[in-house]
Amino acid sequence: MLDHGVFFSERSGRVKSSIIRELLKLGNQPGIISLAGGLPDPDLFPIKEFKECMDEALTPVNGKIALQYGETAGYMPFRESMLELSKKDGIDNIDLDNLIITTASQQGISFISQVFIGKGDIIITEKPTYLSAIQSFTTFGAVFKCVNIDEHGAKIDELESILAKLKSEGKTPKFFYTIPTFQNPGGVCMSLERRKRVLELAKEYNFLIVEDNPYGDLRYSGEAVPCLKSLDRENERVIYLRTFSKILAPGNRLGWIVAPKPIIARINLMKQSSDLCSPVIIQMATDFYLKKDYLWPHIEEIREVYSVKCKTMIDAINKHFPKEVKTNVPEGGMFLWCVLPEYIDTQIMFKIAVEEQQVAYIPGSAFYPDGSGNNTLRLNFTKPTLEQIEEGIRRLGTLISEEVKKHG
Amino acid sequence: MLDHGVFFSERSGRVKSSIIRELLKLGNQPGIISLAGGLPDPDLFPIKEFKECMDEALTPVNGKIALQYGETAGYMPFRESMLELSKKDGIDNIDLDNLIITTASQQGISFISQVFIGKGDIIITEKPTYLSAIQSFTTFGAVFKCVNIDEHGAKIDELESILAKLKSEGKTPKFFYTIPTFQNPGGVCMSLERRKRVLELAKEYNFLIVEDNPYGDLRYSGEAVPCLKSLDRENERVIYLRTFSKILAPGNRLGWIVAPKPIIARINLMKQSSDLCSPVIIQMATDFYLKKDYLWPHIEEIREVYSVKCKTMIDAINKHFPKEVKTNVPEGGMFLWCVLPEYIDTQIMFKIAVEEQQVAYIPGSAFYPDGSGNNTLRLNFTKPTLEQIEEGIRRLGTLISEEVKKHG
Repeated sequence: MLDHGVFFSERSGRVKSSIIRELLKLGNQPGIISLAGGLPDPDLFPIKEFKECMDEALTPVNGKIALQYGETAGYMPFRESMLELSKKDGIDNIDLDNLIITTASQQGISFISQVFIGKGDIIITEKPTYLSAIQSFTTFGAVFKCVNIDEHGAKIDELESILAKLKSEGKTPKFFYTIPTFQNPGGVCMSLERRKRVLELAKEYNFLIVEDNPYGDLRYSGEAVPCLKSLDRENERVIYLRTFSKILAPGNRLGWIVAPKPIIARINLMKQSSDLCSPVIIQMATDFYLKKDYLWPHIEEIREVYSVKCKTMIDAINKHFPKEVKTNVPEGGMFLWCVLPEYIDTQIMFKIAVEEQQVAYIPGSAFYPDGSGNNTLRLNFTKPTLEQIEEGIRRLGTLISEEVKKHG
Repeated sequence: MLDHGVFFSERSGRVKSSIIRELLKLGNQPGIISLAGGLPDPDLFPIKEFKECMDEALTPVNGKIALQYGETAGYMPFRESMLELSKKDGIDNIDLDNLIITTASQQGISFISQVFIGKGDIIITEKPTYLSAIQSFTTFGAVFKCVNIDEHGAKIDELESILAKLKSEGKTPKFFYTIPTFQNPGGVCMSLERRKRVLELAKEYNFLIVEDNPYGDLRYSGEAVPCLKSLDRENERVIYLRTFSKILAPGNRLGWIVAPKPIIARINLMKQSSDLCSPVIIQMATDFYLKKDYLWPHIEEIREVYSVKCKTMIDAINKHFPKEVKTNVPEGGMFLWCVLPEYIDTQIMFKIAVEEQQVAYIPGSAFYPDGSGNNTLRLNFTKPTLEQIEEGIRRLGTLISEEVKKHG
């Protein structure tokens, strides 16, 4: 049998099948309550409204455009709508050349990796951070420097220390990747003061900021904080990644990037050779969805349901988890983050959870570029039903209590 | 103003905005007859049938799956249909692990680049070859060795010479990228004998074959020739790229790759970090389209229309082009390839064509990795109407005749 391995590029060898993904396959078996994935509640998908919009995209006239090749940057009326939508985020200093449509924000992250990261380039991320961003940055050879988070987001003093140390070594990071609003997996929201400071540091130390904002519209309590991009008044430093995955439906695979024009131009070239263009049919249908003013009432509905689910999970945790577990109370997003006693390895516990208690979560180490965080785990409250949340947390509580007792 | 260039990776610097793309923007102005792009005829899109299938994907039950995240490898029922479809191509020695769904074949080409090409790696292509494949391979640092084509496809003696020379230098190419059936832009179909010989050489010199087959189903005359993948009985050497772009509609952005399992597994990891998955909604609708047996009658209809358009263009060329122009008579596909006298530079002539004669084509040098082919051009006969073909060729004939006269 031919050994295909000899043909692979060094780059492709850097992509490892994550142990977590293998583990999660276990958690997808029937009968298991999954608090693992980052999936929205499919009962909330606006199927009827989206079908109405899709029907409009497939009239005899529109269909000829919807089913043809489209522009790489995106279907023009849809891009114009994204410009409008950006104003809602306080971004009013851009035009169409600052914007490109992507296959949800994962493709945005992939383009950022391709455009900026060469082997050995330094990037800074939060710790923990988004699993698939770690994967993409790793593929292109990034060296990670990481900043811990607390209840106000990334710890700025740590960021400053890292930057100062790099500077003393004559090094500059390419960018700081951050999910400032309802961080994945940490659930925290970065304070306005810290956001301003991050921008100051970016100027002082000359690096870019990649702001990933999939959850910003899912706020259940507290005051809105402006996105970093809206604070980037010179429109120089921040590359802003957005997606419809959590506010409309992941299945439409649509996102957009707002960034300085030279960066959008470079990303456009990357997209040309990556997939030529995203499907016009879905861009057009989603554009109709926006023009019919379906989006904001829908987000309101999602917020109400998710907010109840979030509270239900927190109440269940207070009832069923031993006091040794520390959990944050997020003001929005999709996740709760749990820090367990250090003697509990959540990756080892995962197998017991799935096999004995029939409940799944994501072991926290998946979110650490350095593989630490063994005593942490992430819980999702948007996909499971209220009953599954209650019962899943009860089961997990039983298991953690047993583990604590063993070491008590 | 901040210089963003200092942040770009070396890789992203390799992506150049093609002069051709800039030129083609001129050709898209209203009033100009475009024989340039590789677009299907939108009047043939099966809009009504696709809408019926989309409606079925957006029933209250299906919609919850169609709008959710999907598996990276593709929506399972659709992948199973691709397995069936592969049998039509004579590929019967594969299972689901040999197959992955992509965002049309451009994403397939991009994954091939990422998985195999490191900076300085040698690949072999036909000359001329597909513009966006050149772009993608270049991005990842490929060094090109090229084989000329004649009316029976890639010239095998040249391929052998290149391989022998590389071997004598201790070098091995990663793969041979070929469009054997109705080559883009050459229009030629590789003979069975040559296909067999390519496979023998791949074993002898230990390289892979990337077979790109977007046009194989668009045959208007002559006998079908088996695809290279169907001749790869050990399922070891050939990576087979397919797409719905030319046989259903480009707008659904769906393609698939058939390849040895270790390669599919590696591509799957790449797709995870590139875009997680392709839209389930379109995969599901396209799957319904196949299950309702709409595809083959539709292809039959396309074939009839395109075959008439092809003949119309050939007749018009015979009538209007000076005898100094050599044009092939393709048995299928979407393109005619013209070789003009060497004193005519088709890139310089393009501006006159657009500005004075209001007709556009693609200057052939775009399809040459080494930038040669200045006296060649590609014509598309699928997108323009019969009237546009007739008139466009008349105008182009006038222009070429003038150029010939100047040098006569």
